[in-house]
Amino acid sequence: MSYNLLKGKKGIIFGALNELSIAWKVAERAVEEGAEIVLTNTAISLRMGDINTLAERCNAPVIAADATNVEELEALVDKAMEHFGGKIDFVLHSVGMSPNVRKNIPYQELNYDFLGKTLDISAISFHKVMQVLYRKNAVNDWGSIVALTYMAAQRTFVGYNDMADAKALLESIARSYGAIYGRDHKVRVNTISQSPTYTTAGKGISGMSGMLDFAEAMSPLGNADAEDCANYCITLFSDLTRKVTMQNLYHDGGFSSMGLSEAVYHSFLKGAE
Amino acid sequence: MSYNLLKGKKGIIFGALNELSIAWKVAERAVEEGAEIVLTNTAISLRMGDINTLAERCNAPVIAADATNVEELEALVDKAMEHFGGKIDFVLHSVGMSPNVRKNIPYQELNYDFLGKTLDISAISFHKVMQVLYRKNAVNDWGSIVALTYMAAQRTFVGYNDMADAKALLESIARSYGAIYGRDHKVRVNTISQSPTYTTAGKGISGMSGMLDFAEAMSPLGNADAEDCANYCITLFSDLTRKVTMQNLYHDGGFSSMGLSEAVYHSFLKGAE
Amino acid sequence: MSYNLLKGKKGIIFGALNELSIAWKVAERAVEEGAEIVLTNTAISLRMGDINTLAERCNAPVIAADATNVEELEALVDKAMEHFGGKIDFVLHSVGMSPNVRKNIPYQELNYDFLGKTLDISAISFHKVMQVLYRKNAVNDWGSIVALTYMAAQRTFVGYNDMADAKALLESIARSYGAIYGRDHKVRVNTISQSPTYTTAGKGISGMSGMLDFAEAMSPLGNADAEDCANYCITLFSDLTRKVTMQNLYHDGGFSSMGLSEAVYHSFLKGAE
Amino acid sequence: MSYNLLKGKKGIIFGALNELSIAWKVAERAVEEGAEIVLTNTAISLRMGDINTLAERCNAPVIAADATNVEELEALVDKAMEHFGGKIDFVLHSVGMSPNVRKNIPYQELNYDFLGKTLDISAISFHKVMQVLYRKNAVNDWGSIVALTYMAAQRTFVGYNDMADAKALLESIARSYGAIYGRDHKVRVNTISQSPTYTTAGKGISGMSGMLDFAEAMSPLGNADAEDCANYCITLFSDLTRKVTMQNLYHDGGFSSMGLSEAVYHSFLKGAE
Repeated sequence: MSYNLLKGKKGIIFGALNELSIAWKVAERAVEEGAEIVLTNTAISLRMGDINTLAERCNAPVIAADATNVEELEALVDKAMEHFGGKIDFVLHSVGMSPNVRKNIPYQELNYDFLGKTLDISAISFHKVMQVLYRKNAVNDWGSIVALTYMAAQRTFVGYNDMADAKALLESIARSYGAIYGRDHKVRVNTISQSPTYTTAGKGISGMSGMLDFAEAMSPLGNADAEDCANYCITLFSDLTRKVTMQNLYHDGGFSSMGLSEAVYHSFLKGAE
Repeated sequence: MSYNLLKGKKGIIFGALNELSIAWKVAERAVEEGAEIVLTNTAISLRMGDINTLAERCNAPVIAADATNVEELEALVDKAMEHFGGKIDFVLHSVGMSPNVRKNIPYQELNYDFLGKTLDISAISFHKVMQVLYRKNAVNDWGSIVALTYMAAQRTFVGYNDMADAKALLESIARSYGAIYGRDHKVRVNTISQSPTYTTAGKGISGMSGMLDFAEAMSPLGNADAEDCANYCITLFSDLTRKVTMQNLYHDGGFSSMGLSEAVYHSFLKGAE
Repeated sequence: MSYNLLKGKKGIIFGALNELSIAWKVAERAVEEGAEIVLTNTAISLRMGDINTLAERCNAPVIAADATNVEELEALVDKAMEHFGGKIDFVLHSVGMSPNVRKNIPYQELNYDFLGKTLDISAISFHKVMQVLYRKNAVNDWGSIVALTYMAAQRTFVGYNDMADAKALLESIARSYGAIYGRDHKVRVNTISQSPTYTTAGKGISGMSGMLDFAEAMSPLGNADAEDCANYCITLFSDLTRKVTMQNLYHDGGFSSMGLSEAVYHSFLKGAE
Repeated sequence: MSYNLLKGKKGIIFGALNELSIAWKVAERAVEEGAEIVLTNTAISLRMGDINTLAERCNAPVIAADATNVEELEALVDKAMEHFGGKIDFVLHSVGMSPNVRKNIPYQELNYDFLGKTLDISAISFHKVMQVLYRKNAVNDWGSIVALTYMAAQRTFVGYNDMADAKALLESIARSYGAIYGRDHKVRVNTISQSPTYTTAGKGISGMSGMLDFAEAMSPLGNADAEDCANYCITLFSDLTRKVTMQNLYHDGGFSSMGLSEAVYHSFLKGAE
């Protein structure tokens, strides 16, 4: 399937680790839709994952950069612009990690050094990416920047821990920077609040499988998967959504607007007996 | 328990049917807190329920009025002001009914005459009450008007049917009229979005008992009951909340900010096996 | 510009009156993107407007139907399916009118017969359209239904009057029906909350021109116009947004996420001196 | 005015600097309502402000503690419990500061060390306070914890800078911790989203005076001031709001539900000429 929706566009994709990654699917779909891309991730993720397979498939350079490190981001943007021979049209930020989650530290007993890292990696990195792009005037007018988020920013999900707070911060940064980037350079900034998704990162959340089943049973259209999300990202990178900005867009089969579905109701009642 | 929070205040309470009614509890608590009140309901509800017991306990006149009928509302307000010897300080609107729900007509096959009645009784009546009060300049400065609503206005609950749409309309009317009533007479208008509550009206919703259990399991503080709601109403009628207006206030033990609790998660998983 | 995003898809467009109409632009763009369409409006609107010009340009039949009349909607859907030789993939509902607004009746003094008409035309008609489609099983799996709305459903705008309440009801109906249509037929239902737009309907709102200027000054990307909206609709009708449902999507250059912009701040301060 | 709403209750008030402080007014009102309190602030704020005046008036000990320092918070809670001879019933968190704002660094060029401080002081400190209270089991059942916030967490206001992101994080922490504290100890956690207020902290925001005028013109009831806020806090500390938790409560004269008021409209148009 290709509509050439991104023909001639250039983008940077953060966060593709392996075939399960949403960013991986976005990279593939962006290239199918005619875009040229640069792939980036931390050096350690590049070693752990299968990025080279993706890079070949997408004919894309891989540039290591730690999204929490401004200098590395500057080098990344310089190299990407050099590679493209010009400015960038779209960016995907799919970056998040919580040491508290990894170490099973419950939310009521957070380690604050870890919380600082959670926020830096999962939220502040998004500000850093935009600040570097803005300073270098690296994005074309009507460019589009998207970060992936989760509804835990609005409602509390057992086990999501400090990633909930990180996502709330991320979404706020999208609005705050979007107000400026839109005014100054016609660049739009949005977040996609995606169904729980079975990625390598998602697996780290305890009880992820049960959360997926719950969300599936609650959502009239079922969960959105990584490929669905990639398709949605394509629309947000395209020229058809130029006036959408500072929004948090639920991409979740309807979950966010459900209070109680028949399916959840029946399983809950049965289990509560 | 009494703090004299409503000492010297006068109010009209719509919708007390019997001891299960939230409006019943509000009436009792308002009087305990020093208010004088007038009770009102439709003529048929007055016959069906136990209002006289309440009226005696509250030393309050009962004035029949159909809240969908402007003339009856005008007579009610005239009589209330005559009884009080002056203006009114607070109003509770606890009025709602759906013929579609009563007749088990599913939402996808609504009877539109019935929908018209649902909206008129459950939402437009609130506009009518305020329009009559406004025209007669019947509310003191810094008066407080409250209507009861449910979160189905924001999220879809199986079985709540067209009452969801009525509540969305009700909440919008609260905002729209609140903007005018605040500007012109310093009167505030809010809605309380209450936990599912075991009232005579609530019983009409199919599966109400299961919904209560689900909400109880989801809410960190458990469901708010009718007495809790009465207490919350008192704060909104008091002089301590003068600058709160045009708000939809969740009074639900935290339900509205929950995505998934342990208790729901475990029952759901068990039942889904 | 064409990406063939809607190749092979069939849709019904409600509400194209003249070249200023958002529905007009959506019709043109849908056809450019490869769709076949049927145009519909009330008989009187068909006479008043320039629909035949559009019909020729789009090679589309025009079928008169009053969206508040279930029988006429049934005839419309039957004829559309006959014309297409099959089911429908997308629907645009761009229908709204308030007799209270037209007659300059202020919100605090609403005529309730008129309010009933406002709600029936602007909101309940959306339920009727979906109920007819649902009963006839007239929409293909993964079909997409969109209604146009305005942010007055969430926040009060001077002069928007009872259309605010109608839009709140419309958005609730989208959620309520979306939960069922998604579950039963994989059909998604969303509303687009559009910038104030200079259409023939928009002109009816008193002070529309000033509202447009205010929104323009507040929005980082400026107001979204009718063509922008048409492009956004195309993405929602396409296969790239299959898991987006029950959402109210702000398409407004960022207005909805702004509290105060520099431009508004400076004009306000200057004018307030 | 006193209703004895907090008779027998014990609370800790963070953030009273001088007579302009909201926390100052809350302290006075809490004591008027029958509470015993402990006052706390950083050592430097205690020196800069007039806390001793307040302490005498409230017959309250002053205990220095930096809310970003867990050890100091532990000492504070220990001393407060010793002073009270038992557990605590309510807490006010009115703590916030942004070095980026102080140094006029615009949002698009944030200093990230400063951002870390903004978040730690203005948001993470709230987690630390609750974590210390939780670990020590220092709060009575049905206790109430409130933090002050601002609507910049939802919508972008020129000049509010990284405090917007800090407030979004703060509100998320309130929800996240509230889910646990409610479940485990029946303690409720809420945030009050207050009108812009002329405090010493508020003065630090550039253009604060204009923002106050804008909010005043937009809000049907005008801005809520520090005394209004104190009254509202009292209701949230009282036993009348036991089932309200995990909420962000707008206390703003209706601002949050306004899109455009007449007063703003007219000043804007005049200034835009």
